[in-house]
Amino acid sequence: MKNIANKACIGVDLGGTNLKTALVSSSGKIIRSGTARVRLDHGAGMVSSKLAGQCRSLIDSAAELGLEVGAVGLGVAGKIDAPRGSVIFSPNLPVLDGYPLGQELQQNLKIPVFMENDANVFGLGESWAGAAKGILNWAGIVLGTGTGGCLFLNGKLWEGDGLGFSAEFGHMIVEPNGPACPCGSKGCLEAFASARALVSGAKKAIMDQGIRHGPLHELESRGKLSAQTIYDCAKKGDPTALALFDKMGWALGICIANIFSALGIKHAVIGGGVSSAWDLFIGPLKIALAQNGSMLDSDTAVISRSILGNDAALIGAARFAFKASSRHRKTTE
Amino acid sequence: MKNIANKACIGVDLGGTNLKTALVSSSGKIIRSGTARVRLDHGAGMVSSKLAGQCRSLIDSAAELGLEVGAVGLGVAGKIDAPRGSVIFSPNLPVLDGYPLGQELQQNLKIPVFMENDANVFGLGESWAGAAKGILNWAGIVLGTGTGGCLFLNGKLWEGDGLGFSAEFGHMIVEPNGPACPCGSKGCLEAFASARALVSGAKKAIMDQGIRHGPLHELESRGKLSAQTIYDCAKKGDPTALALFDKMGWALGICIANIFSALGIKHAVIGGGVSSAWDLFIGPLKIALAQNGSMLDSDTAVISRSILGNDAALIGAARFAFKASSRHRKTTE
Repeated sequence: MKNIANKACIGVDLGGTNLKTALVSSSGKIIRSGTARVRLDHGAGMVSSKLAGQCRSLIDSAAELGLEVGAVGLGVAGKIDAPRGSVIFSPNLPVLDGYPLGQELQQNLKIPVFMENDANVFGLGESWAGAAKGILNWAGIVLGTGTGGCLFLNGKLWEGDGLGFSAEFGHMIVEPNGPACPCGSKGCLEAFASARALVSGAKKAIMDQGIRHGPLHELESRGKLSAQTIYDCAKKGDPTALALFDKMGWALGICIANIFSALGIKHAVIGGGVSSAWDLFIGPLKIALAQNGSMLDSDTAVISRSILGNDAALIGAARFAFKASSRHRKTTE
Repeated sequence: MKNIANKACIGVDLGGTNLKTALVSSSGKIIRSGTARVRLDHGAGMVSSKLAGQCRSLIDSAAELGLEVGAVGLGVAGKIDAPRGSVIFSPNLPVLDGYPLGQELQQNLKIPVFMENDANVFGLGESWAGAAKGILNWAGIVLGTGTGGCLFLNGKLWEGDGLGFSAEFGHMIVEPNGPACPCGSKGCLEAFASARALVSGAKKAIMDQGIRHGPLHELESRGKLSAQTIYDCAKKGDPTALALFDKMGWALGICIANIFSALGIKHAVIGGGVSSAWDLFIGPLKIALAQNGSMLDSDTAVISRSILGNDAALIGAARFAFKASSRHRKTTE
């Protein structure tokens, strides 16, 4: 077995908007990182070659620092076929459906590449070096374009019956016959607590309430509605924007109450880009959790904010690579 | 270590209405059994002495058959302090709150007594010799006066963070601001899918719809509304009664969809007295599961009916006693 003391791994966080890569030390520190815009209209081949280019540049940086890159951990939004290194289905990266992204990268770089769902690598990051460090049983919720989830039981990532999904908290029903979700159901958590839900909620409110002036209407007419701009409106006191974050907190509180009742646990960690609106949704979240989580004293529940922030998935993907390559060596050497 | 080849255990199922006891062989067969009515108005001391009497009679029967009773497994509806052998809180057996029932029985019989929640012993029974035999990951739902639950992960009873509750599926929210539940929340599964929900649902429908004749109205005016009589009405085609079972199936379907989405599993087993209305709720359950469980192909989900029926908790309590006493011997001998 090789000495891994001066080894590093590359973590990749590939979402619908950005491709982020980082060289990560064995203690979970980011040594070098890079970000590129994902241009889905350029096709899967372009995403793949951009990814390979960024990884090669980090391998070069590592060599300059006297570090060897042991493996790449590739976190991708969507349903992943990990053994084959391909994307099965990705609502936010549809050009990648069925594409052997991991396999191609491995052939290209000649080092092992391990793929995992982006919410799971978020969880691996937070449990390695973030808000869930030392916590055995916890649920993770990732508020991004959609709503991802991960579940750790007895300190390990829980993968259920191996059906290709687990911890899909974003698709737990919060309000039957509520707003439509891209998954086909109605009233899922994701239909209340995601960037997409904020934008469609704002559009619906403008229409339903016949709003014809003010900041939200202006944003909509300029095609500038986004989680960030709606947050800015809410911070300035816009009642329609504030109501959307209230509803987000309410839905999160009910969903977390259901997870805690079902599992007899008390820890949740919330991350993802939209979690930066924490100040606007944590109040209503705690009220809904107390009202709907009858089994757990609300003082006992611990709802934490991601510590690693935007780096959680990146660091977790590298963690996944360290762990997977050590298992890989054990079985092949 | 003693020879346990000719050992048996006693299983006890103590609910709000009946006290059931059975002598169970090491292969899970009921050898002798007894049932007594629970009279809560006679106080906890009377329940305790009736329990001891029934156990003593089974110990005598065992002796006649050349069997030694190794331990008693005591399944009680409610929150249990297992190490102290006492009931913490039991909504259906309020006279037992804080009562050291298990401890008293052990002193009385001079054999080890192990206590567990009734839904958990139901699960131990079904996984030992019933519908969940050989299944590693599954959720159990017990439809009785209230709605109990148990969860098995990797073949073991999942107890969460040890907070005194786990698998409280009956208190997962199905419809926010739905009917009030005795737990204090609104729209819990238990408020739709339990004997109590059927009776209060029938009363509410009679009032809301101004029903002044017909079988349900007659039952209500005679104080004879129960899960059984409402079922009988539904079987004769009464639309109000049928709607209650439709709603029960709908709520079960949403709740099971949420459990499957959260855990990435596909097996559920439904038992308890009210599960005998299976023919009336399984159809709407499957429709709601398909509509709300977007992650799982509805053909993949397996919803099974309890095989052990009314004996599940009794057999499971004995199983619990066999397992607990073997651990107990290992640590004390």
